[in-house]
Amino acid sequence: MGLVIDRLIDKIKEMNNPTVMGLDPRLEYIPNFIKEKYSTESEDYVYNIIMEYNKLLIDNVYDIIPAVKPQIAFYELYGIPGMKAFKDTCTYASKKGMIVIADIKRGDIGSTAKAYSNTYIGKVMIDGELKTMYDIDMTTVNPYFGIDGIKPFIDDVKGFDKGIFILVKTSNSSSGEIQDLKIENGKTIYEEVGTLVEKWGLDVIGKYGYSSIGAVVGATYPEQLRELRKLMPHIFFLIPGYGAQGGKAEDIALGFDENGLGGIVNASRSLMCAIKSDLWKDKYTEEEFYLAIREEALRMKEELTKSIELRKKA
Amino acid sequence: MGLVIDRLIDKIKEMNNPTVMGLDPRLEYIPNFIKEKYSTESEDYVYNIIMEYNKLLIDNVYDIIPAVKPQIAFYELYGIPGMKAFKDTCTYASKKGMIVIADIKRGDIGSTAKAYSNTYIGKVMIDGELKTMYDIDMTTVNPYFGIDGIKPFIDDVKGFDKGIFILVKTSNSSSGEIQDLKIENGKTIYEEVGTLVEKWGLDVIGKYGYSSIGAVVGATYPEQLRELRKLMPHIFFLIPGYGAQGGKAEDIALGFDENGLGGIVNASRSLMCAIKSDLWKDKYTEEEFYLAIREEALRMKEELTKSIELRKKA
Repeated sequence: MGLVIDRLIDKIKEMNNPTVMGLDPRLEYIPNFIKEKYSTESEDYVYNIIMEYNKLLIDNVYDIIPAVKPQIAFYELYGIPGMKAFKDTCTYASKKGMIVIADIKRGDIGSTAKAYSNTYIGKVMIDGELKTMYDIDMTTVNPYFGIDGIKPFIDDVKGFDKGIFILVKTSNSSSGEIQDLKIENGKTIYEEVGTLVEKWGLDVIGKYGYSSIGAVVGATYPEQLRELRKLMPHIFFLIPGYGAQGGKAEDIALGFDENGLGGIVNASRSLMCAIKSDLWKDKYTEEEFYLAIREEALRMKEELTKSIELRKKA
Repeated sequence: MGLVIDRLIDKIKEMNNPTVMGLDPRLEYIPNFIKEKYSTESEDYVYNIIMEYNKLLIDNVYDIIPAVKPQIAFYELYGIPGMKAFKDTCTYASKKGMIVIADIKRGDIGSTAKAYSNTYIGKVMIDGELKTMYDIDMTTVNPYFGIDGIKPFIDDVKGFDKGIFILVKTSNSSSGEIQDLKIENGKTIYEEVGTLVEKWGLDVIGKYGYSSIGAVVGATYPEQLRELRKLMPHIFFLIPGYGAQGGKAEDIALGFDENGLGGIVNASRSLMCAIKSDLWKDKYTEEEFYLAIREEALRMKEELTKSIELRKKA
């Protein structure tokens, strides 16, 4: 059945849509028509409204968007109920056939990185039994610790057919403060990290020539996307920063190859908040909410595929 | 009552012990005399044995060790029960008067970093009410995103009198792969990050001249400890890597100033696994276990304070 990176690319090709839907369930995003169904007195209130919101988003797009990216920070934010919702959201999306990319960005010394990796993409020994803790296919990793912090994740990528995306050039405005520093060999830090990732990735290359070890490269830095596509020919990109953060479709296309492959583009706020009426006042129906997301998902797909098509011909 | 950094240093001075006890409750560390008390069939088994283990460790040292450092990875490892234990461990240690340093090493773009910071050291809005999610005093942060990823934490440091330790030079063997790279101005990445941290810290300086914004510098790199102590005169160090990882007391002393202040040294395995008999076979009594930890804690205190005293005179 191939590597996880092949399954991801298969789905992207099948749906002709290189989009991953971010699932960042801030309570203020959740429509009143959901909140009204549950008592705020109930212990399960936060869990219930997050789950219903996420299921609604997933149900609405799983036939046209190949993957979801729950950002764990927005589940940790709500404590234990939030983490329960994280777990059940991963399972729900996975059962719907979506590839689940957990955005955890963990990074630590070897023994601790191993704990993180085992938790999210490997298995954990509890009482003499190896258990899978979460239904996650791929996850994000921070490279600041060097290979010690990455190696345990690579082991689980190989051992359990999972994938990772290592932060190379992030989408935020101050990412250059560390990542753009030029080192003695003339390269920047992000190029140096990119070169390491390309090297680490060579062991797990799938049928499309891309590795299950990928990289995060922000849509907000088109020049770097172009440059890193050349520097890292076997590395698939997770591309955040489209839409709300300012990244444009024609910028993003620079991260793709001559076959129109090479990355998956994250959209969080632009989908979750697709409906533009006042979110707090909730002047819309469940159906209007649904339609707005679907419409934005199709619009984004159209915009991205058109730009990538143009890029192929360039 | 002063800043959190002052309360931490007050406690270190009062106990004459710059030690923080790591609380990494891997199930294989937990003695059988605890495990035997609970049914493995019970849903609360993992929560119960972690809590009893952590309470035992805390009860045994809270009068001689000023702070604890739960490494969140070893709680996430055990899913929801693990996270419940993390929360209740922070509260328990805090009630015992210990400073709680949550080792989370989060780093992300601004909006996400804000979620992490609000969760662990700030407050979270749930249903129109600002809630404190965890009883945590200080936390660790990853600098790869630049100031965007740090700023939300600095806001909560100021807003809620909390502290952070930003990763500068980590204790693991491959930390140099990124952190030691020399940039064009002749400085290394860790020096560059260190310079930024010193700058960021200047706003929150307490009565001892140290900031509530600190740095992580590994005991395994004595030369860098010496160098960074000079480069970052207002920055308090969280120093991991003592003992099991190879850092020696005389190395650690290089991170301290002429008043014998400047850092707190983490000990995880050396305390948690102080009893040297076969951990799996559990050929020891509860009392022997207790005594071994206490003895190691006092030995470590003695060794560290002696080396720091020598350093003061040097």
